[in-house]
Amino acid sequence: MSKRNLEVCFTPAIFNRYENKDAIVVVIDVLRASSAICTAFANGALSIIPVAEISEAKEFKRKGYLVAAERDGYVLDFADFGNSPFNFTRDKVEGKTIVYSTTNGTRIIDLASTSYMTIIGTFINISSLTDWLMKQDRDVILFCAGWKDRFSLEDTVCAGAIARILLDSSLFTTNCDSVHASNDLWQIASQNPRLYIEKAAQRSRLRDKGLDDCIEYCMTFDLTSCLPVIQDNVLKDLARYL
Amino acid sequence: MSKRNLEVCFTPAIFNRYENKDAIVVVIDVLRASSAICTAFANGALSIIPVAEISEAKEFKRKGYLVAAERDGYVLDFADFGNSPFNFTRDKVEGKTIVYSTTNGTRIIDLASTSYMTIIGTFINISSLTDWLMKQDRDVILFCAGWKDRFSLEDTVCAGAIARILLDSSLFTTNCDSVHASNDLWQIASQNPRLYIEKAAQRSRLRDKGLDDCIEYCMTFDLTSCLPVIQDNVLKDLARYL
Repeated sequence: MSKRNLEVCFTPAIFNRYENKDAIVVVIDVLRASSAICTAFANGALSIIPVAEISEAKEFKRKGYLVAAERDGYVLDFADFGNSPFNFTRDKVEGKTIVYSTTNGTRIIDLASTSYMTIIGTFINISSLTDWLMKQDRDVILFCAGWKDRFSLEDTVCAGAIARILLDSSLFTTNCDSVHASNDLWQIASQNPRLYIEKAAQRSRLRDKGLDDCIEYCMTFDLTSCLPVIQDNVLKDLARYL
Repeated sequence: MSKRNLEVCFTPAIFNRYENKDAIVVVIDVLRASSAICTAFANGALSIIPVAEISEAKEFKRKGYLVAAERDGYVLDFADFGNSPFNFTRDKVEGKTIVYSTTNGTRIIDLASTSYMTIIGTFINISSLTDWLMKQDRDVILFCAGWKDRFSLEDTVCAGAIARILLDSSLFTTNCDSVHASNDLWQIASQNPRLYIEKAAQRSRLRDKGLDDCIEYCMTFDLTSCLPVIQDNVLKDLARYL
């Protein structure tokens, strides 16, 4: 088996420069979409329908769906809750299909959908994610959600943590500068990831809105073994089918 | 005097997300455009005219101008020379106006031209550049040229080296994740910048084309005190007018 190629993409604005339709794309939005999605599955959600438009989310709400919807960190008034992983508790989500609309998330999932497969990755499912990636004979693109097309530190160090595990397995190789940068930043951040993230812009944005209570949680390794993948525009937990 | 804002932009694809028309933009293309431009001025070039199209460069050649033109590292056949800083020797460039067309350069200079001022920065003019930036009461955006819209390690660590000097002066502040990342990567790279760059994709590309003889040179601090700025679409050495 020849080595598989590993790449990191720092912003949705350049994802079209990553021409590899056969790769598995890992969507990383640590604060908070990836963490929220993993938490929903960890607490028994059946599936998650990502929608782009507020009007679509509203239409689903009218039909009786549970709706999580936010813009720039603020919960939309008709929604059941916003984007904090703490909202997706077992009593609310178990056995349910959730409609989910966030600032960045849907666009990124759309972009990634041109690839072989899209999976959601973050610190809280990192071991099950990397174990699964190592079992596939596929190239991997770690796709950082960033913030409004800009680079984000927390997504990058998470990409670095994933990259480190994959490269250490010797199954992967890379000639991608973003992999080297992520890996090196994780080398620094891993000494104290929670402290490292203190300087991230998203950390300040969440604090300013009183939404920073989930950061410790989002930076914790292996709280769940779920593997959220997109199938026919719906997120499901692949781990339940393995 | 309030602190000035410092930002780093990793790729031309997201420069439009940096909305600050009052900032000074530093264009960083370490391997090799920024290094070549600084070398030309160090060796007495009068001015440099950046042109986008090959046809334009050809037209200037017909008019008797000295023309440096390359695409993807290859010299165009009608040109006097390509993009290696070693081409811009004193006997060739002193007192001359050079027409210059590269893969990335012109587009980036065009993008940056919406700002208050555009200046070329790299390792070989880093002290004179940072001294000058500290004397201006302006925000600064360090604009990494990258490669075909992708992130590049050598431009990023150079941005980190510049950022470190500016932040250490206490004249600047930042809330930009790319500044933190550059700064941290420079912390690692500064132990041996030449060795650190061994893993950069551009380093491999230059080696594959036999163009890597200039890397040591391009990574050297302070070979010149020139300050190439754009005025009326022409590059001139501001250091001569100070």
